[in-house]
Amino acid sequence: MISRRRLAFPLFGLFFAAQAFAQDGSAAPAGIKVEAPASVPKWGMFEVKVSGLPANTEAVRGILRGDCASRIVDGFRDGDLWRVRFMATPDSGLNYEICCESEDAGSKTIFKGEFEVTEPEPGMHGPVQVRNKYHFAHADGTPFYPVGTTCYAWLNQPEPVRKQTVETLSRGCFNKIRFCIFPKHYVFNEKEPDLYPFLLKDGSEKEYDWDYTRPNPAYFARIDEAVETLGKLGIECDLILFHPYDKWGFSNMPAEANDFYLTYMVARYSAYGNVWWSFANEYDILKDKTVDDWEHYAALVQAKDPYGHLRSIHNCVPFYDHTKPWITHCSIQRQDFYVCAELTDQYRSKYDKPVVLDEIQYEGDIPYMWGNIAGPELVRRFWEATVRGGYATHGETCVGHDDILWWSHGGKLWGDSAPRLKFLKEILYQTPGYGLRHTNQEWDDDAACAEDDPDYLLFYFGRNQPKYRDFNKLDPDASYRVEVIDTWNMTVDDRGIMKGRFRLELPGKEFTAIRVVKVKEK
Amino acid sequence: MISRRRLAFPLFGLFFAAQAFAQDGSAAPAGIKVEAPASVPKWGMFEVKVSGLPANTEAVRGILRGDCASRIVDGFRDGDLWRVRFMATPDSGLNYEICCESEDAGSKTIFKGEFEVTEPEPGMHGPVQVRNKYHFAHADGTPFYPVGTTCYAWLNQPEPVRKQTVETLSRGCFNKIRFCIFPKHYVFNEKEPDLYPFLLKDGSEKEYDWDYTRPNPAYFARIDEAVETLGKLGIECDLILFHPYDKWGFSNMPAEANDFYLTYMVARYSAYGNVWWSFANEYDILKDKTVDDWEHYAALVQAKDPYGHLRSIHNCVPFYDHTKPWITHCSIQRQDFYVCAELTDQYRSKYDKPVVLDEIQYEGDIPYMWGNIAGPELVRRFWEATVRGGYATHGETCVGHDDILWWSHGGKLWGDSAPRLKFLKEILYQTPGYGLRHTNQEWDDDAACAEDDPDYLLFYFGRNQPKYRDFNKLDPDASYRVEVIDTWNMTVDDRGIMKGRFRLELPGKEFTAIRVVKVKEK
Repeated sequence: MISRRRLAFPLFGLFFAAQAFAQDGSAAPAGIKVEAPASVPKWGMFEVKVSGLPANTEAVRGILRGDCASRIVDGFRDGDLWRVRFMATPDSGLNYEICCESEDAGSKTIFKGEFEVTEPEPGMHGPVQVRNKYHFAHADGTPFYPVGTTCYAWLNQPEPVRKQTVETLSRGCFNKIRFCIFPKHYVFNEKEPDLYPFLLKDGSEKEYDWDYTRPNPAYFARIDEAVETLGKLGIECDLILFHPYDKWGFSNMPAEANDFYLTYMVARYSAYGNVWWSFANEYDILKDKTVDDWEHYAALVQAKDPYGHLRSIHNCVPFYDHTKPWITHCSIQRQDFYVCAELTDQYRSKYDKPVVLDEIQYEGDIPYMWGNIAGPELVRRFWEATVRGGYATHGETCVGHDDILWWSHGGKLWGDSAPRLKFLKEILYQTPGYGLRHTNQEWDDDAACAEDDPDYLLFYFGRNQPKYRDFNKLDPDASYRVEVIDTWNMTVDDRGIMKGRFRLELPGKEFTAIRVVKVKEK
Repeated sequence: MISRRRLAFPLFGLFFAAQAFAQDGSAAPAGIKVEAPASVPKWGMFEVKVSGLPANTEAVRGILRGDCASRIVDGFRDGDLWRVRFMATPDSGLNYEICCESEDAGSKTIFKGEFEVTEPEPGMHGPVQVRNKYHFAHADGTPFYPVGTTCYAWLNQPEPVRKQTVETLSRGCFNKIRFCIFPKHYVFNEKEPDLYPFLLKDGSEKEYDWDYTRPNPAYFARIDEAVETLGKLGIECDLILFHPYDKWGFSNMPAEANDFYLTYMVARYSAYGNVWWSFANEYDILKDKTVDDWEHYAALVQAKDPYGHLRSIHNCVPFYDHTKPWITHCSIQRQDFYVCAELTDQYRSKYDKPVVLDEIQYEGDIPYMWGNIAGPELVRRFWEATVRGGYATHGETCVGHDDILWWSHGGKLWGDSAPRLKFLKEILYQTPGYGLRHTNQEWDDDAACAEDDPDYLLFYFGRNQPKYRDFNKLDPDASYRVEVIDTWNMTVDDRGIMKGRFRLELPGKEFTAIRVVKVKEK
């Protein structure tokens, strides 16, 4: 990577002196080819490919000039190509410039072009941002209610498994997935990956002697394809930048390699609308990295990423300080064996940010307590988080299926929770406005109302199983639509319109919810 | 009640001057009849009945002279009779004296007699005491593992319900029951009792205008019968002396009435081997009573009770200070909606006493969260308490059965937990020595060992459901008997003898336990 000091003068001095060529490359210097589409749907990724640049090219940058603002992005070398990626954000205009600098800074080439932003593809709503303090929405205002899952190392699995994973994800149970950029070495993850993220140093005979300046094009092409494919399925990718389950050295690369890698990641993935930055899984197990390191990584990504993708950092035991301004939302692993989702509203109060419980034990039957709860218990935890105005994340660790465990490898789901989480997601998407919050109703239920509408109420009884419930606190003169929800059997029983004082008969079963919505005058 | 000052002189002065009569009453003053059995089984209740005493008799006391110590007990008036009760404890001898004082202290009559202590009745082991710091044993050394239940007001129900309660209790699921001395006014408890604990003041026309010096003989006769009947069933009676669910005035009697009542209770019930004193249910809701009041009650009972029955005081929200020396064990109501049994070892550490979780929500389906969990969840909580070296208590609140709810009324059990608790009790009684304690095995299980034998191990997985478990920490050269326990289906699957390093296949279901016991060399 070129240091800022070396760049400062040449960029300014040569910007206007450089030749400008059209995007079809017809007038480019001999051998240089620039390819880019003439149009891209709104929220899509627009990529300019530049090939034939001199081998000593050090940097390629892009500037997108829109109606409201300019965006400057880094390009990145990808084998013989350089790629420069923009997101077709609302305020992106039609003009772009690509500036290619060679090692001899006196040689700089600028290409100019334009493209058209067309209608978004169906279901595309732009990147997810924090909305209404504790919740999320896409850039176009569409609410986003995370119901995530976890397949840490799914991209390091053989192709049939990866295909199976996408097939499973296409069933719509989840709208967010957490996975690692680097391969994973851990229990149940002891096979070598087929590809590595970096190429080996030329001529080195040592094992795992990586050239950290040369990302492996095939490795990242697979990630590109995954991010794009999942984007079309409406799935956000919470990309885990660092993690400790490592035998190859990626968890403790030299400082400059970390910076290069993060810059590369931003250059390559920030143009995708469905990317979130998860700085670490279990940051506290990465013993070589200090808080200063994490703050540095965060500052780097924040400075480079022109789209401000969501940023979080996930703990093993102690939380990172989620009050840090760069952290957009809490990405939490439970700290207690028994209670986690139940603490969601405490976390909201403490951090004043969205709370996403990204690890609350997985459905499964492995010998480790973090991965052997039953489906009903996992679904209960999701609902407990939900009625407290937070969100949770699924994972599955079922043994006995050719050593393929969803939590890490993807593949098929064997548990019972996924369809119930899809059902919960549907319930969430029926919330008016943006999100739910905990509301004190009685001391014997967990109740939420819509964040912006106290007359939209959702009660959840979890493991409590009342046979009836007396409603004594609602407006006695108002009318309410009352529905009894079986969160496990996925039914909504419409009990009709009731006046504000009533007894509601209930099934006397665990995992019952009630939705009570005031009938508004028209 | 006679004040101490008035008693001091006459008792000393007249003790030797009084006439002595044999227990058959033949030589008693005209009209006075003394009845007592010639023998009583060890641990049984020995009662002397004195009738025909002058109406102005103020106090009757008994002295039992044993091999090792003397015991002085109060007698109590019961209608036309006075009763003096002793327990046939191991060190009680054969001789007793009954001293009857009249209002005119110059008139005192002493009866002397003797009785024989015979072999205990089958299953009688004497009063339960704290043993091994955190556990319990009967006076003869037999361990006592509490698996209790709760029928607060069962003695205030109609006779058929009371009979049904005893029939249910005779099935052996529980060896301890909590119930109130005073009747109960509360939700689901709004009928007047058929009897009241005190007689009305003579000639009063006010409702509930009690003469607190005149306990109702019929009321207490019913309690006597219950304590005796339950004793024969091997059930300890945790008698709740005060509680706040009141409309009759018993929760805020005058100070002298409280003292009289407690003295009366001790006189009447301390001779029973199966009595525990629970000073209050939800003491903190009895707003008129201060900590000084409770300390006074405790001191009074402690001074009067010659057998040192177990003493506790039960909270609604804040715990009473369980470090107080008079408190023999913690009688706890959960303070958190979700976690309670899981905190047992913390309570042990904090209070250094046995921990009995007397209220951890009841199996049932009423609309209140304290009474509508499912059977499996209640049984889970019992096991969680067990593997942490504590104990729990059952209750059941199922609606739809003629408004009879076990938790308060007794009757039948409709839930699923009771047989599983009987099974747990059987497992507990297989513990070597006295009691279990938490032991750190792996971070992914709740494990106990016998308090005095680290080679007797009991693992419990609760809602975790591993398909297998690798044992890597046992003595590799030793042999272990391994059993897999299905705590819900009540099966013990003997897997035979294994060397200290092994993989154990498990059912991958919730509520599994493992018992691993080192094979000792003979």
